[in-house]
Amino acid sequence: MFRFLGSGAVTQVISRRPTSLGVARCVHSIPFATAEVEEISGSQPAEVQNLVGGKWGRSSDVNTLLDPLNGEPFIKVHEVNKSEIHPFVESLSKCPKHGLHNPFKSPERYLLLGDVTARAAHMLSLPKVSDFFTRLIQRVAPKSYKQAEGEVYVTRKFLENFCGDQVRFLARSFGVPGNHLGQQSHGFRWPYGPVVIITPFNFPLEIPVLQLMGALYMGNKPLLKVDSKVSIVMEQMLRLLHTCGLPIEDVDFINSDGPTMNKLLLEANPSMTLFTGSSRVAEKLAVDLKGRIKLEDAGFDWKILGPDVQEEDYVAWVCDQDAYACSGQKCSAQSILFMHENWSKSSLLSKLKELAERRKLEDLTVGPVLTLTTEAMLEHASKLLKISGSKLLFGGETLENHSIPSIYGAIKPTAIYIPLEEILKDENYDLVTKEIFGPFQVITDYKKDQLPMVLDALERMHAHLTAAVVSNDPIFLQEVIGNTVNGTTYAGLRARTTGAPQNHW
Amino acid sequence: MFRFLGSGAVTQVISRRPTSLGVARCVHSIPFATAEVEEISGSQPAEVQNLVGGKWGRSSDVNTLLDPLNGEPFIKVHEVNKSEIHPFVESLSKCPKHGLHNPFKSPERYLLLGDVTARAAHMLSLPKVSDFFTRLIQRVAPKSYKQAEGEVYVTRKFLENFCGDQVRFLARSFGVPGNHLGQQSHGFRWPYGPVVIITPFNFPLEIPVLQLMGALYMGNKPLLKVDSKVSIVMEQMLRLLHTCGLPIEDVDFINSDGPTMNKLLLEANPSMTLFTGSSRVAEKLAVDLKGRIKLEDAGFDWKILGPDVQEEDYVAWVCDQDAYACSGQKCSAQSILFMHENWSKSSLLSKLKELAERRKLEDLTVGPVLTLTTEAMLEHASKLLKISGSKLLFGGETLENHSIPSIYGAIKPTAIYIPLEEILKDENYDLVTKEIFGPFQVITDYKKDQLPMVLDALERMHAHLTAAVVSNDPIFLQEVIGNTVNGTTYAGLRARTTGAPQNHW
Amino acid sequence: MFRFLGSGAVTQVISRRPTSLGVARCVHSIPFATAEVEEISGSQPAEVQNLVGGKWGRSSDVNTLLDPLNGEPFIKVHEVNKSEIHPFVESLSKCPKHGLHNPFKSPERYLLLGDVTARAAHMLSLPKVSDFFTRLIQRVAPKSYKQAEGEVYVTRKFLENFCGDQVRFLARSFGVPGNHLGQQSHGFRWPYGPVVIITPFNFPLEIPVLQLMGALYMGNKPLLKVDSKVSIVMEQMLRLLHTCGLPIEDVDFINSDGPTMNKLLLEANPSMTLFTGSSRVAEKLAVDLKGRIKLEDAGFDWKILGPDVQEEDYVAWVCDQDAYACSGQKCSAQSILFMHENWSKSSLLSKLKELAERRKLEDLTVGPVLTLTTEAMLEHASKLLKISGSKLLFGGETLENHSIPSIYGAIKPTAIYIPLEEILKDENYDLVTKEIFGPFQVITDYKKDQLPMVLDALERMHAHLTAAVVSNDPIFLQEVIGNTVNGTTYAGLRARTTGAPQNHW
Amino acid sequence: MFRFLGSGAVTQVISRRPTSLGVARCVHSIPFATAEVEEISGSQPAEVQNLVGGKWGRSSDVNTLLDPLNGEPFIKVHEVNKSEIHPFVESLSKCPKHGLHNPFKSPERYLLLGDVTARAAHMLSLPKVSDFFTRLIQRVAPKSYKQAEGEVYVTRKFLENFCGDQVRFLARSFGVPGNHLGQQSHGFRWPYGPVVIITPFNFPLEIPVLQLMGALYMGNKPLLKVDSKVSIVMEQMLRLLHTCGLPIEDVDFINSDGPTMNKLLLEANPSMTLFTGSSRVAEKLAVDLKGRIKLEDAGFDWKILGPDVQEEDYVAWVCDQDAYACSGQKCSAQSILFMHENWSKSSLLSKLKELAERRKLEDLTVGPVLTLTTEAMLEHASKLLKISGSKLLFGGETLENHSIPSIYGAIKPTAIYIPLEEILKDENYDLVTKEIFGPFQVITDYKKDQLPMVLDALERMHAHLTAAVVSNDPIFLQEVIGNTVNGTTYAGLRARTTGAPQNHW
Repeated sequence: MFRFLGSGAVTQVISRRPTSLGVARCVHSIPFATAEVEEISGSQPAEVQNLVGGKWGRSSDVNTLLDPLNGEPFIKVHEVNKSEIHPFVESLSKCPKHGLHNPFKSPERYLLLGDVTARAAHMLSLPKVSDFFTRLIQRVAPKSYKQAEGEVYVTRKFLENFCGDQVRFLARSFGVPGNHLGQQSHGFRWPYGPVVIITPFNFPLEIPVLQLMGALYMGNKPLLKVDSKVSIVMEQMLRLLHTCGLPIEDVDFINSDGPTMNKLLLEANPSMTLFTGSSRVAEKLAVDLKGRIKLEDAGFDWKILGPDVQEEDYVAWVCDQDAYACSGQKCSAQSILFMHENWSKSSLLSKLKELAERRKLEDLTVGPVLTLTTEAMLEHASKLLKISGSKLLFGGETLENHSIPSIYGAIKPTAIYIPLEEILKDENYDLVTKEIFGPFQVITDYKKDQLPMVLDALERMHAHLTAAVVSNDPIFLQEVIGNTVNGTTYAGLRARTTGAPQNHW
Repeated sequence: MFRFLGSGAVTQVISRRPTSLGVARCVHSIPFATAEVEEISGSQPAEVQNLVGGKWGRSSDVNTLLDPLNGEPFIKVHEVNKSEIHPFVESLSKCPKHGLHNPFKSPERYLLLGDVTARAAHMLSLPKVSDFFTRLIQRVAPKSYKQAEGEVYVTRKFLENFCGDQVRFLARSFGVPGNHLGQQSHGFRWPYGPVVIITPFNFPLEIPVLQLMGALYMGNKPLLKVDSKVSIVMEQMLRLLHTCGLPIEDVDFINSDGPTMNKLLLEANPSMTLFTGSSRVAEKLAVDLKGRIKLEDAGFDWKILGPDVQEEDYVAWVCDQDAYACSGQKCSAQSILFMHENWSKSSLLSKLKELAERRKLEDLTVGPVLTLTTEAMLEHASKLLKISGSKLLFGGETLENHSIPSIYGAIKPTAIYIPLEEILKDENYDLVTKEIFGPFQVITDYKKDQLPMVLDALERMHAHLTAAVVSNDPIFLQEVIGNTVNGTTYAGLRARTTGAPQNHW
Repeated sequence: MFRFLGSGAVTQVISRRPTSLGVARCVHSIPFATAEVEEISGSQPAEVQNLVGGKWGRSSDVNTLLDPLNGEPFIKVHEVNKSEIHPFVESLSKCPKHGLHNPFKSPERYLLLGDVTARAAHMLSLPKVSDFFTRLIQRVAPKSYKQAEGEVYVTRKFLENFCGDQVRFLARSFGVPGNHLGQQSHGFRWPYGPVVIITPFNFPLEIPVLQLMGALYMGNKPLLKVDSKVSIVMEQMLRLLHTCGLPIEDVDFINSDGPTMNKLLLEANPSMTLFTGSSRVAEKLAVDLKGRIKLEDAGFDWKILGPDVQEEDYVAWVCDQDAYACSGQKCSAQSILFMHENWSKSSLLSKLKELAERRKLEDLTVGPVLTLTTEAMLEHASKLLKISGSKLLFGGETLENHSIPSIYGAIKPTAIYIPLEEILKDENYDLVTKEIFGPFQVITDYKKDQLPMVLDALERMHAHLTAAVVSNDPIFLQEVIGNTVNGTTYAGLRARTTGAPQNHW
Repeated sequence: MFRFLGSGAVTQVISRRPTSLGVARCVHSIPFATAEVEEISGSQPAEVQNLVGGKWGRSSDVNTLLDPLNGEPFIKVHEVNKSEIHPFVESLSKCPKHGLHNPFKSPERYLLLGDVTARAAHMLSLPKVSDFFTRLIQRVAPKSYKQAEGEVYVTRKFLENFCGDQVRFLARSFGVPGNHLGQQSHGFRWPYGPVVIITPFNFPLEIPVLQLMGALYMGNKPLLKVDSKVSIVMEQMLRLLHTCGLPIEDVDFINSDGPTMNKLLLEANPSMTLFTGSSRVAEKLAVDLKGRIKLEDAGFDWKILGPDVQEEDYVAWVCDQDAYACSGQKCSAQSILFMHENWSKSSLLSKLKELAERRKLEDLTVGPVLTLTTEAMLEHASKLLKISGSKLLFGGETLENHSIPSIYGAIKPTAIYIPLEEILKDENYDLVTKEIFGPFQVITDYKKDQLPMVLDALERMHAHLTAAVVSNDPIFLQEVIGNTVNGTTYAGLRARTTGAPQNHW
């Protein structure tokens, strides 16, 4: 049974952990937090609740998560089951299709949200709060402190961009004189009304905050579902937003398994669903929701090194970051690298190997892979290594001395060389271009006159998210950019496939 | 079998009708036309071909259309069957995903298309050419000369908007300074590459030209399919565009039935499909194409008359136009009218009746309905008339003295009054708000304090295309606009639901 | 002699007032402030320094200001004289014409300024800091607490709008495809380089901050000069900005008399000068600087009340605010009011009188006029009262029981009625439309058929800053708006002439 | 005395040249033209009239122009004298400050002007009309057929850009939600009302058409004054525009000397004056008009060749075009060329010499200089040649076998080398960077480590119109672009200083 818990319930949560939390609040000055990030453990498991209609609450089912670093059961997520979805459906349906606000309705809410955002940005700029979220991200989606901190930083910068009047500027309309006196055409941005946002595990704070706030700004009422493995981060972030003045009824928050969410979507029939995650689920949803969905794809992201070899150390460092930061669990991670033969002759490959081998579990520069097991990844590697001419450049082994539970993956940063001609063969192409959401990349090289083959390989790919063309040669850049398609292409000698979205406008 | 016909084939077409066409060219100075608009008839049927890979051609199957005004078999449309689709699939697949041009590839094509557009706009401004297309539209989608001419005019205005450099201005990009010296982020508009455009019968020239040119401008290669009933108009328009310099390989043009087109879509797997037409087909396509589709919906369009009664003659005239022009076969046609009680007491209804009864078949101010039979429409009327309190205001009968073939509909402009309370009842709502794509509307009224009921009725509708709020009262306008959602809302005393899209930017 | 004072000098400043400042810092927690707002007085005068080349310093001349409320000498402004301008000229000339940054130079400065802005916005949101600046404004430019606080609020909102990446978004460029492969046209925003900003007394914080930050964001190096009567406010604000991370060399700050500033401008020859202030000085500068100047004008601002009389209390309240808030010392203050005869018959005038008479010196709802003496204003009133048919509606007298020094003005809120026909006469027009920068307005009325005469009166005015058309009648609004010209026109029943600029984008 | 001549007057003009013009109209099909371009000569002089208040007319003074190629008196320009300016002042003053139209007044005029523009663009695309204007430009501002035709082409492209709805799209407004329900802020573009446009001799069609149409589109009423030497071109173009539907009262057109025009400006006091021409006149106007003027400057335009030597033939060709096309009489003509030492060692200079020497009077690839005499230019050359280390590269002589009248200049394309160190010396700098509006350039070179000296030279220049950085080296480009300022900078190996403005948006 799903029980709605009012403010009394929150008190109850607190009273359950009087010591730790009481102290936490003194020590940490984090008034909104209900979790003590350093103390979450098998003996002191944290708890993630749901929010609907302005009330936080538990459900009858609990999904207990294992600590990805040591396998202890460390977080209890209250997951709503199929018999408990009604309140969520009802809450969504209360929001009309013209939204909570629009340019002709409750415009003061644009200002309210600008104020909430300014306060939230300031909160995230406080070292204690920034550290709290950085560590919380590390606990559930292990990555280096710098990578996790970067996620908090980008989230803060996004919020800074929508302080003050910037929310209402989003609702800027335009007008054009009409044919006759007294006639003008105006164009306005209108909300969808009730919407659903579904986000994945790899960026537990950044992706949901950006999508949630964007939806709120335009007047929508979002129901947010984050992958249960990491949903504690957004649960805490919602509490921060409430502290900053966000009306508690504005956002609903749900934890559930996939079939339950699917049922909820069919019953609530939201005006729009924004889904970020695997292509397989995306396609099913597109069918179920009859097209009323926006998808943020995954990607098999490529990088091409052009003929001009310069700044080898820098390029090697960027390649290592693009392929292996966050253990390769970014949608923008470098999946395949095409080197011009001039680079093959350079020290690049040996530098890549050296950098990859420096990564270690202790500082989480390499860590657990949350969606693939060790076996699955090694099996993929061994399939690739059967291709004629292929060879293991480095990695290809399980991590040493780890206590990562077996449901997760644990391999060393891996690179496999495959000849370009083999990649292009029909029998190999799909295998080689299969995205492995872990510390794994394919490397190949091409001769001066083989650029058309490289472009052909790129044209045949499906998911085009990011790409990088590493060269300062304007003719080469133009040739590659003009003949490819991607969400984002980074060009220039310092190009990379991964970059913060906050300066893509 | 589908036979490709080269330029020899065009000669062949000409040689088949040496006299009429030869003369036509002298008389009409319409060098591109292969049809003689006034002479198309059972004895001199016109012919519509397909275009693929730069070659016009016939197919083994022919769909013979009946003249909607007298039932004569007057146009032979060569429809491609399932065994003949290969050339179309191949032609589409030749276009890479980065398109025929983009900001980094063949930018001179932006200028070429600007030139083609300038010439085409000028051609459409020539009285002979304008008359040719106006009459051709009338022959296949009967509407008054003024309405058909308006379609040609709007098409011309659209083309005028993209003369000269305006096509390349569409490809305007932006840049933002990056974090470090030498770094900048740029955003570009990129084409989809191979695309399919499917358009309906009611605007045979305007809808396909606007969508086709937009797709071309951005670098896409479109395959165009227009409803066979009216595809002769675009077949002739493509010939005009070729005369104006459009490369003949840039657009493919196909006639076929639905299952064949569905097969083609699945095989060619275009990057995007733009579909304008019925919701039923749209939903099936959304599923088949896994979301890679943009839909232009139909609409059940409403108009509200506010408390301030002014300019009754003008408002009555607009209501008549919105509901019955083009025999109600516009997606933006007024389907339901909500009158404030002040208007009920005015002479509006009697004026509406008078105007509706002036419409006659001779000048096509009322004419055949191409997607619904007479029986279907009268049956819907009789169902509505069973609702408690409803009454027939005018119409509700078949047209007199007509020779419209029975596959089409032929009724007098019809209006049925239904009390607001009844409309809102669950058992009636779906019936009342069913879109009838013909000269048919529902009229109701509301009391001063019943506005929330009206807004509730609007909130429950599904397809929101256009709407009009007829009032000069700013408080009333704000109340209605802020609480509804539509593609386009026309506001003010002179508001209407139908309007040329060329000034919505 | 102008003495440069390094960090030692600042210490010296501090050491001169060890007690007050030391305590102040403890009590107020305003770490940047060097003045104690409540204690500035004849016995504890404050001091305003100059800033050049990153160093605060004093000059040989001191301009001692009288407290506008009691005549005590309460602030000592170090004014640079002609022999001391060299360091300012040199500092400006060090900045090249391509600025401190531009999209191709030091782009990291865009981010730096975004950060500085975020911090400054947060500082201004702290109650202590907000109160500090509110009170400081009140001390030098007496207005009510609410009006002064509003100025701080608007300044904060402006800063919130440029947090995070918003500064670099200002530097957004665009590109258009060129004629040939490899060609693209790009448009960038470039700074002027060395610029001068000169601002008036009436908004001591808002006007300089908005103009200064805008100049900095785009890469300019500004020299700021604020009217000495109020420059203490910006002197303190600069110290706040330095605390927030603004590099101390980025802005120079000067106090001087007019001839010295004129000499400096001619020697430094800045790329652009932004001047806000009196038309007389503006014209001289335009000539001296050969057009390299942008002017923010004063204005004789009008309001028209339309035929529809509604919400009399609200309209009266807005009229009172527009005419008399800040003692009429806003460039956007209502200078003339045209009432439709329907309003003349209403209780509006009596309500205006009542509201004006409630204003009192104690809470600064009326206060000293800083640029006109009492005599000058009363003389103007008596000239107006000689016009045939004119009459004093209220005011027209000196304030009672005040200690405002005689260099400033002190009159009661005043309104004089003049018949429309008289206003339009050539011999009266210039006199009636002379702007009085104090609590002073002209009121007239017009008959239904006299609107063209009103429009003619408006057409003949020179400075068009703001205007208001108070009506909900769309025909009336269109008629007036379409036939007039203004920087900002406020329309609608709730229209006003004064409004915060932060939502005009 | 200035006599107004109505349509009768035009008949009179025609009756004066019954044969030629009658034939011309048959032959040329140029219905609007009143001049026969090939037959204008000493024996058949053409006549240029004035237009005011919708009527063409003559004046009492006539300025007789000499044919720049042979000195024959070939055009009689009716120049208005000081006693005849009243009708022009009156016509301007009839236009209110809110213009002939604005978004709230006569919006149908946006469409009218879109239609006029579409027709005019089409007219200019007719070979006969294009040839007419090309030749007319050649007659009065001698340049090669290709250069003059380019001017007509750019003018046509500009007009194509404002066909259809594009004029009203210029008047696009925006809106932002306000603080409270019912409040929105809107921004509109408003005209100035009465404006004056003054244009120079070098682009007799392009500059006035672009500025005139831009002014008209926004609702202004322009008075146009073109340099009398070339005003026949715009006189004919206005007649074309009238044929295309431009209301004859919309534009006034005046020929006069400078003092008369100055008097007119002071009396008419237009809201804005747009002046393109010499800096000397511009500064005087800025003072007289108290800043109400927009200036299009002249320019001393530079080009830098970077370290990467490629495509020498192409670069040499562009340099020759930039410096000598139109005999150097473009504001964007290359005035100084900085070569990297790598280029000095290449064959560039010898190629430049060869190309310059190919230019000849017969095809007008070099021709008369309209604002400087031969003596003035040769004297400047000899002054430059006195600088230490300077040398004549080519040219420096009068043209041979010419009949150009002595009031105009006639020299061979000239280049003078001056060492960089000498250019930078205070005693030489002003002399070297003096703009010579003729076929004249300075060339210098710089060593790898002398780039800062080059940048210093650029920083010290005053008029920054166009510039080119010829290199494909991204670091070099960034260094130069980030450290300079210009209206337009062209970058890349194919960069040039002269380019059509129609793709700068």
